[in-house]
Amino acid sequence: MCSDPAADGSNDQPTATTVAAALREAKRSNPYQSVGDFLSNTNKFQIIESTLREGEQFANAFFDTETKIKIATALSDFGVEYIELTSPAASEQSRRDCEAISKLGLKASNPASHYTRCTLEDAKLACDCGVHGVDVVIGTSSFLREHSHGKDMVAITKQALEVIEYIKSRGCEVRFSSEDSFRSDLVDLLQLYRAVDNAGVNRVGVADTVGCATPRQVYDLVRTLRGVVSTDIETHFHNDTGCAIANAHAALEAGATHIDTSVLGIGERNGITPLGGLLARMIVGSHDYVTSRYKLHKLKEIEDLVAEAVQVNIPFNSPITGFCAFTHKAGIHAKAILNDVKLLTSKIKAMADIRPLAIDDTDSIIRSFHLELQDQQ
Amino acid sequence: MCSDPAADGSNDQPTATTVAAALREAKRSNPYQSVGDFLSNTNKFQIIESTLREGEQFANAFFDTETKIKIATALSDFGVEYIELTSPAASEQSRRDCEAISKLGLKASNPASHYTRCTLEDAKLACDCGVHGVDVVIGTSSFLREHSHGKDMVAITKQALEVIEYIKSRGCEVRFSSEDSFRSDLVDLLQLYRAVDNAGVNRVGVADTVGCATPRQVYDLVRTLRGVVSTDIETHFHNDTGCAIANAHAALEAGATHIDTSVLGIGERNGITPLGGLLARMIVGSHDYVTSRYKLHKLKEIEDLVAEAVQVNIPFNSPITGFCAFTHKAGIHAKAILNDVKLLTSKIKAMADIRPLAIDDTDSIIRSFHLELQDQQ
Repeated sequence: MCSDPAADGSNDQPTATTVAAALREAKRSNPYQSVGDFLSNTNKFQIIESTLREGEQFANAFFDTETKIKIATALSDFGVEYIELTSPAASEQSRRDCEAISKLGLKASNPASHYTRCTLEDAKLACDCGVHGVDVVIGTSSFLREHSHGKDMVAITKQALEVIEYIKSRGCEVRFSSEDSFRSDLVDLLQLYRAVDNAGVNRVGVADTVGCATPRQVYDLVRTLRGVVSTDIETHFHNDTGCAIANAHAALEAGATHIDTSVLGIGERNGITPLGGLLARMIVGSHDYVTSRYKLHKLKEIEDLVAEAVQVNIPFNSPITGFCAFTHKAGIHAKAILNDVKLLTSKIKAMADIRPLAIDDTDSIIRSFHLELQDQQ
Repeated sequence: MCSDPAADGSNDQPTATTVAAALREAKRSNPYQSVGDFLSNTNKFQIIESTLREGEQFANAFFDTETKIKIATALSDFGVEYIELTSPAASEQSRRDCEAISKLGLKASNPASHYTRCTLEDAKLACDCGVHGVDVVIGTSSFLREHSHGKDMVAITKQALEVIEYIKSRGCEVRFSSEDSFRSDLVDLLQLYRAVDNAGVNRVGVADTVGCATPRQVYDLVRTLRGVVSTDIETHFHNDTGCAIANAHAALEAGATHIDTSVLGIGERNGITPLGGLLARMIVGSHDYVTSRYKLHKLKEIEDLVAEAVQVNIPFNSPITGFCAFTHKAGIHAKAILNDVKLLTSKIKAMADIRPLAIDDTDSIIRSFHLELQDQQ
């Protein structure tokens, strides 16, 4: 019914008619595609993958060096732009692992960022590991809320600027982040961010550390911050109230540039924005961007790798990869069953004699069985 | 530092000073408490629990009558305001179950609502079951988007009004809902809703059937609808893109009055807003409202009941009840272990000989073991 938008104008300048036609067409082809505003980054975000930092804080995560390298390599191959690692200051093992991963020469443009406290000593330790960038963090809520406008504010800023200057002098990227941003005093927070922005940080970070922010609160804070700093904005959302994916999306709409994720969302308590869930969210409105950057067909493999490492089952309701989300696992089932039906079913029957099996128990048996078969091939 | 807000004014009228002090105090005591606007219902929502309708459409759900009665009773006791049941038109078994549950006399103020197609025949069948209310639904997206402003619109409205009038004549509550609301033509949708509002429906319903709406889209649509109809607004969110909880919260902020949930979020594909997740979200800003209405300490029990019935494990990262969310399960573990350590550990060891056990496998063994112990007592 509508005329072709491209054929509508007589020159290259869009007319009101072509714009209206293009909007109608966009809405017709995908009602979930945002008409967009000039701040939105839903079509140009980057992922800071934190399975090896936030994820290592998951109740059940104890990664050895080999596992860390496997995960980092898989994530780099998948296409994430940053990989965040546990601070080398945490332990000697963490330091060695940080160094080892930094030396891998992974394809991700920034193979090893790093998370550390805002002290010169920690920053030096990180830079010495050969990382690409250093993420420094400062707990602002208790300081800023209780002692706002006092000496503490001045001291925090001074300390932050010193550490930032040092990291830059070592040729590393630097991100400055507050912890518990949504419970910090807004005015003090903005003042601090502006100071570090002026000092030339590569990114400032906002964190919903206790996982209680709502999408509208996130949108408001990030949009306000977007007007105050000119540098990139990274965001980190915990999932205690089930909003970590929606909050990440709202942050991008408001002008954030980077989202922290972990595989299956593992992290402190019930974790953060999951890598797969974020991409399920983003692909709806930004299909071409997501599919051009990330190897979605490898998501299942990465989730299996991490699920195995931290010994959990993939939740039945995981976006994209949960057993009921689509039929993603059907191929694996079929292959394994065709390979050796009898051995597999006897295993399942033996387990069923011990206790009733849930569908995801059966699934994990089939998965282990399939992995064994792969190893034998 | 601030003066006591109550002592600040010399009479009962709030002054600018008392309002400012109250706002400061509210922000200090809970930064996540919304200052609120006059449309927001985050402090006065109701739950329409759809485990026995949406949940029955979950890939792995095959509830028998006894299980349905157990679940309905548990949900009523928990405090949900409505229980939605599968249409009696679906099968003779569904009809009998609907009748049986309607006769239970459950405490929930509206023990049995019901979901049916928008036909007189289906509506009659539902009313004959003795239900409190009937939910009718009409698929608007394909009709309204392809044939908007045509005869179909008139026909849809006429049919809806007939069915609504019939249900009201039978003394039942009636909800009118569109399916796939976010892909329907907005103007036609509002016209239809206004017509049924004028006809005196008790609620209109908005559904994100494909689970792709964002919180901002939800807020916009519900807020617009709030300005068009005067009746209650029910909302239904699928979780394909991980936003079902956030969308429910956004809907309440925009003036929705009722939220559809299911236990563990079970439903089509990866389901809808989970009951526990919604309450985890709402309790942050509306603590007193949530704790006064719902028996949160029984959430774990209801989730166990449903998880058992549909044979899934509770996802490791479920808000509130996931094994890593807090330490909710610790009590159960300890009790079971204290009851009979040897028998339990020998079970776990026997299973571990068969395959590596995930933490939630172990957890479900301990849970089954504990349930057996309870049965024996």
